[in-house]
Amino acid sequence: MSELPAEFSLIARHFRPLAGEGSLNLTDDAAVFMPPAGRELVISADAMVQGVHFLPDDAADLVARKLLRTNLSDLAAMGAAPLSYLLTVSTPRATPDDWFAGFAAGLAQDQAEFGITLLGGDTTSTPGPISLSLTILGTCAPGQAIRRSTALPGDEIWVSGRIGDGALGLLAATGRLADPTGYFADRYRLPRPRMGLAMAGVVRACMDVSDGLVQDLGHLCRASGVAARIEAALVPRSLPDHLELCLTGGDDYELLMAVAPAQSAALLVHAAILGIEVTRIGTFGKGPAKVTVTAADGIEMAFTRSGWSHFD
Amino acid sequence: MSELPAEFSLIARHFRPLAGEGSLNLTDDAAVFMPPAGRELVISADAMVQGVHFLPDDAADLVARKLLRTNLSDLAAMGAAPLSYLLTVSTPRATPDDWFAGFAAGLAQDQAEFGITLLGGDTTSTPGPISLSLTILGTCAPGQAIRRSTALPGDEIWVSGRIGDGALGLLAATGRLADPTGYFADRYRLPRPRMGLAMAGVVRACMDVSDGLVQDLGHLCRASGVAARIEAALVPRSLPDHLELCLTGGDDYELLMAVAPAQSAALLVHAAILGIEVTRIGTFGKGPAKVTVTAADGIEMAFTRSGWSHFD
Repeated sequence: MSELPAEFSLIARHFRPLAGEGSLNLTDDAAVFMPPAGRELVISADAMVQGVHFLPDDAADLVARKLLRTNLSDLAAMGAAPLSYLLTVSTPRATPDDWFAGFAAGLAQDQAEFGITLLGGDTTSTPGPISLSLTILGTCAPGQAIRRSTALPGDEIWVSGRIGDGALGLLAATGRLADPTGYFADRYRLPRPRMGLAMAGVVRACMDVSDGLVQDLGHLCRASGVAARIEAALVPRSLPDHLELCLTGGDDYELLMAVAPAQSAALLVHAAILGIEVTRIGTFGKGPAKVTVTAADGIEMAFTRSGWSHFD
Repeated sequence: MSELPAEFSLIARHFRPLAGEGSLNLTDDAAVFMPPAGRELVISADAMVQGVHFLPDDAADLVARKLLRTNLSDLAAMGAAPLSYLLTVSTPRATPDDWFAGFAAGLAQDQAEFGITLLGGDTTSTPGPISLSLTILGTCAPGQAIRRSTALPGDEIWVSGRIGDGALGLLAATGRLADPTGYFADRYRLPRPRMGLAMAGVVRACMDVSDGLVQDLGHLCRASGVAARIEAALVPRSLPDHLELCLTGGDDYELLMAVAPAQSAALLVHAAILGIEVTRIGTFGKGPAKVTVTAADGIEMAFTRSGWSHFD
C-alpha cells in the first residue's frame, strides 16, 4: 500500500521537474510563498479547450506554450513582470504519456524563456476534449498597473505586431490559406506576448487583443468612456486581403495601447530596443464609447461581427 | 459596434456582482492587489469535470459550492485563512442562462459564508462536458503553513468528521444506497471544509482526505518518511457496513492530522469550540513509509485499491 497510483506518478515524472520555489515540490495541498515586498500582485486565469482554442492535432508542446503565453499576454497588457503559475489539466484517460511529456517540455521551454516556474495545480480525467486552465501571477510597482480605463480623448491608438495574423493563422493551420513558409500557422499556434512593452508613464491605457481588434477596442472605449477612430489602412497586416477577418478575428495577442502624443516618441524608442514593431492606427476622442473604422476612402466601415465571443 | 457580445454580457450579469477588491470589476486583463503585509500567500488550484467530479444533473449552485469548497479544503489543510479566488468556466454553448444564475448564486452564498470574493477568471465554450477550474488564495503567518512532511514517529493520527461519507454519498446520489433523509447525497454534493481546525503548534502535519483515507495517508507517510498504523474500528463512519469503500473512497474533504500526544487535548478543545468532530484513529511510527490497517481482530487488512486516481 505504498505504491504510487498512476495520477501521482504522472505528476512526479512530468510536472515535478517544472516546480519552483514555493511549490513544495507539488507534494502538498497548496503552494506557500512570501510575495515580493512592496510589490502589487497581478493575477489572471485563462482556459483553453481542445477544438476551441487549439486544434485537435496541435503538438502538445505548442499547446502548453500557447496556454502559458495567452496568460503572459494578460500580464504584458498590465505592464506586469511574470512570477509563477498554477495549472489544471483535464485529459481523456487514453491520453498517451507522450502527450504529457511533450506538454511538459513546452512548459519547460517557456519557463526558461520567461523566467517563471510552476507553483501548483491539478490533473484530472475527462470524458470530453482536453481542457486546460492556467492562473498566472506577476508583480508590478504599487499603482503602476496599466488599466483599460485610463485612456483620454486625444490619446493616440497604437498596436504592437501585426493584426489579423492569429485569424489568418487559423485559416492556414486548417488548410484554407496558402502558407508556404508556415509563418501564419506558427502565429496561430505560438503567440508572442509583448512582455515589457507597456510601461507606466509611456502607455496610458492598455489591453491585449485576443478576441478581435474592433471588439477589444470597444472594451477599452467602454472602460475609459472614450470613442475611438481608426483607419483601416493604418492597421499593420501581413496580407493585403482578408481585411475584415484581420480586424475582427481572434488570437492575435498583441497589445492595444493609448499613448499621449507627447509619449509616442518614447514608445517608439522603447519598442525598437525590444525589437517589437509598433504602429499608430488612430486616435481616441470624447465619449460616448464607440469604435469607428474608416476605409481608405474615408467611409465608415460596417462589420457583420466585431470579434469573437463564445456564446453569440 | 458598442453592443456587448453574449459572453461579456454573461460575465457582467452573473459574475461581476461576485467581484471584490482587486478584481477591477472583472473588466481588465488581470486583477491587481497588494498582498497583506507580513503574511505568506497560500495558493492552490483544483479542476472539476461534469460526470467525473459531480453528477450531470447536480444543481448548479451546489456544483459551484463544491468547486469552491474543495479548494477551501486545501487551504484548511495548510492552516491558511481564505482571501479570494479566480475561476475558469467552460460550458457547452447550449448551457441555459439559468445554469449560470444558479452557479453564481452558489458562489455568492459561499463567498458570504467564507468571507471571500472573486478576483478574476475566464468563460469559454466547450464541445464537451462542463469543465471548471478554481484557484484559491489564502494567507498564513510566515513559516506557519502546516505541511504534509512534518509528521514524526509517535505522533497520533487524527481525522475530522466521518470518513467514507463522500463515497457513500455518491452511492446515495446515484440511487445505490437508501438515503431517506438525504444526509449522504448532501455529503457528496456539499463538502464541509474544516477551516480553522488545523492550527500550527497543535497540529504537526496535515492534509485533506480527498482521494481515499488509505491512499492519502500513504501520501502523508511518504512526505514525512514515517509509517502509519490505523485501526479500522476507530475510523469514524456513518454506517456499520461498506468498510472498505469508506476507507478508500474519495470526496470526503476531511482533515488528516499528525498530532503530538501532548497536543491532543488542545486539539479536542479547539475542535469542540469549532463544533467539529475529531477522532484518533492510529499512530505514526518509524519509516519506511507504509500504511497498515488492522481489523478488529488485529489482522492486517488488504484492499483491492487504496484510493482514487484519475489514470489508473
